[in-house]
Amino acid sequence: MIKVVIIGSGNVAQHLLLAFVQSKIVDVIQVYTRNKNNTTLPLDSNKITSNINALLEADVYFIAVVDNAIKEVSSLLNFSNKLVVHTSGSVAMNALDNKNRKGVFYPLQTFSKQKKVDFKEIPICIESQNNKDYELLEKIALSISNHVFNINSQQRKALHVSAVFVNNFVNHLYQIGQDICAENNIPFEILQSLILETSNKIISLSPSEAQTGPAIRNDTETINSHLNFLSDNNQKEIYKLITKSIIDHGKKL
Amino acid sequence: MIKVVIIGSGNVAQHLLLAFVQSKIVDVIQVYTRNKNNTTLPLDSNKITSNINALLEADVYFIAVVDNAIKEVSSLLNFSNKLVVHTSGSVAMNALDNKNRKGVFYPLQTFSKQKKVDFKEIPICIESQNNKDYELLEKIALSISNHVFNINSQQRKALHVSAVFVNNFVNHLYQIGQDICAENNIPFEILQSLILETSNKIISLSPSEAQTGPAIRNDTETINSHLNFLSDNNQKEIYKLITKSIIDHGKKL
Repeated sequence: MIKVVIIGSGNVAQHLLLAFVQSKIVDVIQVYTRNKNNTTLPLDSNKITSNINALLEADVYFIAVVDNAIKEVSSLLNFSNKLVVHTSGSVAMNALDNKNRKGVFYPLQTFSKQKKVDFKEIPICIESQNNKDYELLEKIALSISNHVFNINSQQRKALHVSAVFVNNFVNHLYQIGQDICAENNIPFEILQSLILETSNKIISLSPSEAQTGPAIRNDTETINSHLNFLSDNNQKEIYKLITKSIIDHGKKL
Repeated sequence: MIKVVIIGSGNVAQHLLLAFVQSKIVDVIQVYTRNKNNTTLPLDSNKITSNINALLEADVYFIAVVDNAIKEVSSLLNFSNKLVVHTSGSVAMNALDNKNRKGVFYPLQTFSKQKKVDFKEIPICIESQNNKDYELLEKIALSISNHVFNINSQQRKALHVSAVFVNNFVNHLYQIGQDICAENNIPFEILQSLILETSNKIISLSPSEAQTGPAIRNDTETINSHLNFLSDNNQKEIYKLITKSIIDHGKKL
């Protein structure tokens, strides 16, 4: 078994722990969390520590903490020449402290505590300083996911920015749709099949093939009538800007 | 059987025709199209006309033409006191000519010619001037869809604006994600499971529960690093504006 220690107890840490528990080749021997009493980790309590200096010897240490704590946490580790990876989409591998061998193990997915995810379908982007470590990370990744990619730090940054657009920003557009429905006594559920259909299209059509609506048709009458309808300033500005961007993008094709 | 005539041969007209062919209570007796030779309608050619003055007597006339032609087409009909409905999300029922009884039959879905849709899952929003016509439209709608809603013109406008956000604009964010991936030699397929997961969340979580990412965390370091990464002006402005909107929305909660 490959012995791993998880450092952190947030969303990503919890989902990784659950995935590793299912893996036949990974043994989570310890989880570090700052507040030992405050966690509901599915792990024997004697495997949970809040003492960063009491980490057990393992094959890989997964740092799954907030982005801006990765550098500091990696520098606090009181051992050297071990494989230490972080799990962030937006932090370079080199942010990790030099005393240990570096790597990245980034599950490209949005984790909400309330919703179970099928880890097998989550792409895992891995990177490391040397080939042997890469092979180990790949072995671990393939034991929990069907989609494993070799992605360097620059690509990972691009991927993370893309993910903000297609996930965080898309969800905010759902929010705006819901807000407009609520103001007009329309059940948001009416939009559910449209939302699912829109995302399912990407399996068979490219975004440019799938683009419909007043902007791509350059239907200024509808665009102006929608802008008149909107009263919230952010909604209005988003409508204007994305409409402009769709029109500009259409010209480039 | 309920006799219907479809006026138009675009995306919506074609999908309606396919759905009506499946319906056990609707008989499409005729389709009007401006250019008779240019169509590939799944209908006997003797049921297709390009003469607006040769429309047969029917129980309902469906005007499925571009939004800004609805008014004119309805005024060109050379009969009166028949039920004439349009199929648009953004045009008021009253845009229809006064000489006939008015109604709306709006399938709230995005239709691409390349992709088949399951009409049963598409919400149909109906409206009419009188109850008897409403009942007829409801009967037709229920014969092709499991989701039928009574939506007045003001609500339909709100719904259409919402649909632009959750469908057209969401698709453009997919486009931006794809463009960023392409520039960095990353297969767009990596983002597929994230996109599907993001949309599937709306079945079980509200958009505000599902919101994740640097904006809602107020993670200015990541936000600034993403803005530095982006070089395309529209992408940068969209990033800034939606980030601001997510932060403002979070304050309201």
